[in-house]
Amino acid sequence: MIQPSRPETAAAEILCVGTELLLGNIVNSNARWLAEQLASLGIPHHRQEVVGDHRARLICAVQSASRRCRLLITTGGLGPTPDDLTTEAIAAAFEAPLEERAEVWADIQTKMTRRGRPPSPEVRRQALLPVGATLLPNPTGTAPGMIWTPVPGFTVLTFPGVPSEMKAMWSATAAPWLQQAGLAQGVFASRILRFWGVAESTLALRVEDLLAGANPTVAPYAGAGDVSLRLTAAAADQQAAEALLDPLEAEVRARLGQSCFGGDDDSLASVVLAKLRLRGQSLAVAESCTGGGLGAALAAVPGASDVFLGGVIAYANAVKQQLLAVPAELLREHGAVSDPVARAMAEGVQRLTGSTWALAVSGIAGPGGGSPDKPVGLVHLALAGPHGSSSEGVQFGASRGRSWIQTLSIGEALNRLRLALD
Amino acid sequence: MIQPSRPETAAAEILCVGTELLLGNIVNSNARWLAEQLASLGIPHHRQEVVGDHRARLICAVQSASRRCRLLITTGGLGPTPDDLTTEAIAAAFEAPLEERAEVWADIQTKMTRRGRPPSPEVRRQALLPVGATLLPNPTGTAPGMIWTPVPGFTVLTFPGVPSEMKAMWSATAAPWLQQAGLAQGVFASRILRFWGVAESTLALRVEDLLAGANPTVAPYAGAGDVSLRLTAAAADQQAAEALLDPLEAEVRARLGQSCFGGDDDSLASVVLAKLRLRGQSLAVAESCTGGGLGAALAAVPGASDVFLGGVIAYANAVKQQLLAVPAELLREHGAVSDPVARAMAEGVQRLTGSTWALAVSGIAGPGGGSPDKPVGLVHLALAGPHGSSSEGVQFGASRGRSWIQTLSIGEALNRLRLALD
Repeated sequence: MIQPSRPETAAAEILCVGTELLLGNIVNSNARWLAEQLASLGIPHHRQEVVGDHRARLICAVQSASRRCRLLITTGGLGPTPDDLTTEAIAAAFEAPLEERAEVWADIQTKMTRRGRPPSPEVRRQALLPVGATLLPNPTGTAPGMIWTPVPGFTVLTFPGVPSEMKAMWSATAAPWLQQAGLAQGVFASRILRFWGVAESTLALRVEDLLAGANPTVAPYAGAGDVSLRLTAAAADQQAAEALLDPLEAEVRARLGQSCFGGDDDSLASVVLAKLRLRGQSLAVAESCTGGGLGAALAAVPGASDVFLGGVIAYANAVKQQLLAVPAELLREHGAVSDPVARAMAEGVQRLTGSTWALAVSGIAGPGGGSPDKPVGLVHLALAGPHGSSSEGVQFGASRGRSWIQTLSIGEALNRLRLALD
Repeated sequence: MIQPSRPETAAAEILCVGTELLLGNIVNSNARWLAEQLASLGIPHHRQEVVGDHRARLICAVQSASRRCRLLITTGGLGPTPDDLTTEAIAAAFEAPLEERAEVWADIQTKMTRRGRPPSPEVRRQALLPVGATLLPNPTGTAPGMIWTPVPGFTVLTFPGVPSEMKAMWSATAAPWLQQAGLAQGVFASRILRFWGVAESTLALRVEDLLAGANPTVAPYAGAGDVSLRLTAAAADQQAAEALLDPLEAEVRARLGQSCFGGDDDSLASVVLAKLRLRGQSLAVAESCTGGGLGAALAAVPGASDVFLGGVIAYANAVKQQLLAVPAELLREHGAVSDPVARAMAEGVQRLTGSTWALAVSGIAGPGGGSPDKPVGLVHLALAGPHGSSSEGVQFGASRGRSWIQTLSIGEALNRLRLALD
């Protein structure tokens, strides 16, 4: 084996403790939240680990971390039950004795009594902290954490696994302490730019030279159909970090043009709704294979109702005929999945609702219903506007599966309208 | 420092690769899913780790894992961009050269061409695997994984970070391989029982005695509105494991009654569609605040079209009047979010489509639009059937936010129809 370079020691690590995480019973939302907090404080963070409620493995994880990083954040394992072992294991990792803190035991008794529960002997374990550790108070729960520097250059902060308690303790005590202790190094600012209609690999190629930058950095990632770039800058303060990002964002937008549909919390639906709102125009939908998903994407955006009127879910052909007045001949001659029918659907719902614009989707989401002529993944997308209508067939590929084909159809339909509004 | 005991080497570890996880941009749902799969295969799993897209740290993580465990599952970092480093780093960790696999490159070209995108040189990187590694095919995406035993007693399986691709690869190739390779120890059989209309804490209380069992085990977990119990049994073979689960499932079902709507891959929508299919009956929907999400939940189920006809998205009041013939007086007198209007919507769409059953949803998903009389979170749900219609108001609570209120409305509407069909 080759020897890897020793990782930087200045960084932070997160250690989440809990067998329920290893069994897949719950998703590790604490790690995500802590990661965001560390990033916003400008504390570089290179590693997360999850271990179960197991004394030897906990000791091993803490000792390893102490050799790699300056700051270890732990969550979980501070409760009163026998499988809550975090404090005890951390103390054992550095051969420090535990001692009961009178003020903690008093606080636990007060909280238990207020909840109408007698303070049990099990709960008293939570008042034990290693000698030399500083209390990290828990304003809402009975399990306090600690701030402890057991060896020079290595500090551990412990939090309970209950998200609300962890967050309250972080904001009240841990974040200010990290800033005061000089562990927060400036700030990181981050922006997301979102794209549609460009593959992740193509996008990366267009910004290849920028991907190599050290500060600010550019990193691509892919969702279901949409692709994003994350721009991140480190600086002494927020303003300086944003100033590093401004020219970079302008450069990326100039290179990628219309395929960039927005940033941060934008979705294709929110962007389309905002453009229509500015124009004072309205939108309706007629959906076959997406079954209402296009409407739901629009309705997911708060305040959609001043633009989005509604529409028709024309899943069955009879509904296409009866509600949208799609002529029976068109259905017979071209089939439901065709440009003429998609156009007739869009025009039909535009007429019915009086909307300025209308989108229609008719396709084969699979897994059944395909034919050599019209395979699974073929979707026809129509747009009716103030000056007429158009439709186009798109082949998303059968291999992507029903749910992804539906998601892509919704995004592609919204993107067509977005481009028409540019 | 004391020497911790060496952790067992028989176990598996999960390594998730991606700077977006360290920055807290996304939650690590892949780790949870993989943890569940390992548990269901009876593969003990003691550790999860997250590292960024960083070559040296990746090499270090893989080497450390190879000294601790028999099986390492990685996700992420298999894409075409320069920061996708997983395959390369794993090869470097064991000083193995990479080689291009002709069949992978051919498959990538086919998939790209089918999607109308020229295969770029960057994508070709994805055809590189270490010498000696076995291909772990990716049926839907262009990034394949590998199954590789670089040193005796240590095997690594790689997956892309895109959840749908990872899951498809796991089910098609990885899970059967793990069973064949004897890494799955004995057999774990697992069943999920799904519930609606009961809180997780209530459910746990009703099966409290069963939660303490060692084999089979019962574990509760909660989604958005639905709650599940996972029943797991370990035994020498599948039949013996299932035999342990049968009486347990019967006991749980007897205790929880109608609140159990199904198991495993069932959804409320799939259960309702199956019940209607058996009766030869059809369903239509009329949606206001869910904007099409109820229809989309039904259309998400393959083969929905023989039961689900479609419906009307009546987001604007004008659409409620014009398409569903909701009388203007009803809207004036009671407001759109009311039992009379919800009933008129359900009856309207039933009449329009000729469906046997119709569901209607009208509510205030927020964050705006609430009033003291009709606060955010108030939703009226109506059901029209062969023998008349009914409607009821439900208060989901403003604090849950728009998306959750929409999800709960969809589930609650489907659940009402399910109970009506019992």
